[in-house]
Amino acid sequence: MTTIPTFDPAQVLIAMRARRPLVQNITNSVAMAISANVLLAIGASPAMVHAVEEVEEFTGLADSLVINIGTLTAASVAGMRLAAASMHQRGKPWVLDPVACGATHFRRQTALDLLALKPTVIRGNAGEILALAGASGAGSKGVDSLQSSDAAVDSARALAVASGAVVAVTGEIDYVTDGTMTVAIEGGHALMPFSTAVGCALSATVAAFAAVAPPFEATVAALATYAAAGKIAGQRCTNGPGHYPAELCDALFQMAPDVIARETRLTVTSA
Amino acid sequence: MTTIPTFDPAQVLIAMRARRPLVQNITNSVAMAISANVLLAIGASPAMVHAVEEVEEFTGLADSLVINIGTLTAASVAGMRLAAASMHQRGKPWVLDPVACGATHFRRQTALDLLALKPTVIRGNAGEILALAGASGAGSKGVDSLQSSDAAVDSARALAVASGAVVAVTGEIDYVTDGTMTVAIEGGHALMPFSTAVGCALSATVAAFAAVAPPFEATVAALATYAAAGKIAGQRCTNGPGHYPAELCDALFQMAPDVIARETRLTVTSA
Amino acid sequence: MTTIPTFDPAQVLIAMRARRPLVQNITNSVAMAISANVLLAIGASPAMVHAVEEVEEFTGLADSLVINIGTLTAASVAGMRLAAASMHQRGKPWVLDPVACGATHFRRQTALDLLALKPTVIRGNAGEILALAGASGAGSKGVDSLQSSDAAVDSARALAVASGAVVAVTGEIDYVTDGTMTVAIEGGHALMPFSTAVGCALSATVAAFAAVAPPFEATVAALATYAAAGKIAGQRCTNGPGHYPAELCDALFQMAPDVIARETRLTVTSA
Repeated sequence: MTTIPTFDPAQVLIAMRARRPLVQNITNSVAMAISANVLLAIGASPAMVHAVEEVEEFTGLADSLVINIGTLTAASVAGMRLAAASMHQRGKPWVLDPVACGATHFRRQTALDLLALKPTVIRGNAGEILALAGASGAGSKGVDSLQSSDAAVDSARALAVASGAVVAVTGEIDYVTDGTMTVAIEGGHALMPFSTAVGCALSATVAAFAAVAPPFEATVAALATYAAAGKIAGQRCTNGPGHYPAELCDALFQMAPDVIARETRLTVTSA
Repeated sequence: MTTIPTFDPAQVLIAMRARRPLVQNITNSVAMAISANVLLAIGASPAMVHAVEEVEEFTGLADSLVINIGTLTAASVAGMRLAAASMHQRGKPWVLDPVACGATHFRRQTALDLLALKPTVIRGNAGEILALAGASGAGSKGVDSLQSSDAAVDSARALAVASGAVVAVTGEIDYVTDGTMTVAIEGGHALMPFSTAVGCALSATVAAFAAVAPPFEATVAALATYAAAGKIAGQRCTNGPGHYPAELCDALFQMAPDVIARETRLTVTSA
Repeated sequence: MTTIPTFDPAQVLIAMRARRPLVQNITNSVAMAISANVLLAIGASPAMVHAVEEVEEFTGLADSLVINIGTLTAASVAGMRLAAASMHQRGKPWVLDPVACGATHFRRQTALDLLALKPTVIRGNAGEILALAGASGAGSKGVDSLQSSDAAVDSARALAVASGAVVAVTGEIDYVTDGTMTVAIEGGHALMPFSTAVGCALSATVAAFAAVAPPFEATVAALATYAAAGKIAGQRCTNGPGHYPAELCDALFQMAPDVIARETRLTVTSA
């Protein structure tokens, strides 16, 4: 069983920056700009490529992929499915962000279809993970989570076991689980949920880290780095969430690897 | 006839924040991120859901809806029509933002088709309201208004009577009318028109307020809150419009209800 | 042969602001908001109009057009082709931004199809210009350029001769060529590549300037204005790229024409 020293976000961050992975994004219209800016700030190379005519070819160039169903359409779903299948076939990592997957039949079905294409990592809030895990009464209210991340940990474990993916539930406390081991990450800032698509950009960040480390370590490292930067960013936003995306990018850009451990707290809650 | 004390934006803002309405947005690609951020900042819950496969189902969850034709396509228009019809059928409020509706036949026709689906509130600049009201020579130059809002008040009244909607014309002075009563709102800032999609995000804000108050009071309250925040935001932007969206969100986030009356001026111009 | 005094970016900026051209944008989803904000800041009027149902009609209103293939789909390509053909037929300028055109067959084919529709100006990074010029081994890694702009100058000249377009290669040093004369522009800031879609917004800026001056002078003026503003913006971003888009808009908004010559260096490298 892995022990705590395995989770060294600083080293994964250093490795990711050295590799500068090309991250293919099939994401929602709200999240595109902030996802690209977050990836650039942290040291990765973003590409927004989603058309059915080119997604498969592009997966040959990409080091990893993130698929986010935030503003899905029938056309974008077709591109998502081709890209996910292609990454899986190539043995490259891809991350699923099942935005508001409990809200409509179309979202639920799309999320399940993508789940069958073997995501390497799934990241969502409590409501999304509960819905995707089939937990009844998830009560998703738009893309906001009505429930704390704690409430979704059991569902996350079950989803990890059933899907083979590493599952991350993010909220006031973040949890990462492979079904056996679970790590809790404390950090972030209360302003984070008041800035749109910050969670979506986190999923893109997970994809960047997954290009250079095993899924569990990569996900913990991405969430810890983001939690540290998110905390620093929030402390700089004294008047509200307006400048949060900009401050988050600055904090990611400036993040010294050793700062992560200082600003976050990692706990192995089950192993 | 309603008297001035009815228009108490502070109380409507308080009620809206207490309810935290789920606002469904079918808006243009430019406006998505800022609309979501404005809604989060003011205390509402945004959802960007526009696909034909899910818009009707989602209207069952939404408290209100905004439809903005800024970057319309044939596919997005289909989603708009389904969503508008569904909200009308459910008796829930929806807001129409007829961006640049005078510019092309496609926009004009789309705006007219949506108008037939009974929007609760219509918000546009002078050129858009003139065009939608059928006033000749609206002279729309892109999405910018060439004419002051004053020039469109008569058309707004006529449009309100013909459509049954509350109509808001925004500009240096904002006007809200139901065809009988008209209220003028002074506030805002000269930098506002130099920041894209700030008007689109205002339409989303109207939808948030319309979830908790009658259309006329809701629209006046939304415009007054926005005018107050927009003024404060502009005063903080000493070098230009670059930080305007961020400052606007901060001002909305921090808006104390009693500040609205101090920063704006409401006048009943006809009753 | 033109001499240096012809390139007076200050005068072209003044003329552009006086005209306030309506610039039609068919651009990618990442770039829409920043393109609109940059155009507003510099003194132009943006319109995001791309649907096949309306692009041709709208070209009748537009003073110039920019087409950017960043997040293309089959549907958006159809609109691009109609719009480009219509602008060419009307004798109005249009700018091609061939984002990542070397990355996939779909992009390469789309870029070539658009090239056949006679763009007035082509702007890209080294990898994009190399790929479009048919230079082998362009090695495009996403939308980032792996090669310095110097490496693409010969290809840019060849592309200009073959296409009849003015070609701009941007990077640490920018180059503008018509195949005979080449001008180098120094300015900008090292943070520029860390902020997404800043290059896309530059292409929109070229379109604004092309509405009031011959293509070569317009492109040099647009790039010089942007290089000056980009330098000032970078100097104001002491913590990273997070506020770069906002600072860039402020610098463009405040740009005094005489500042351009002070902050940039123009050199005719061949004539």
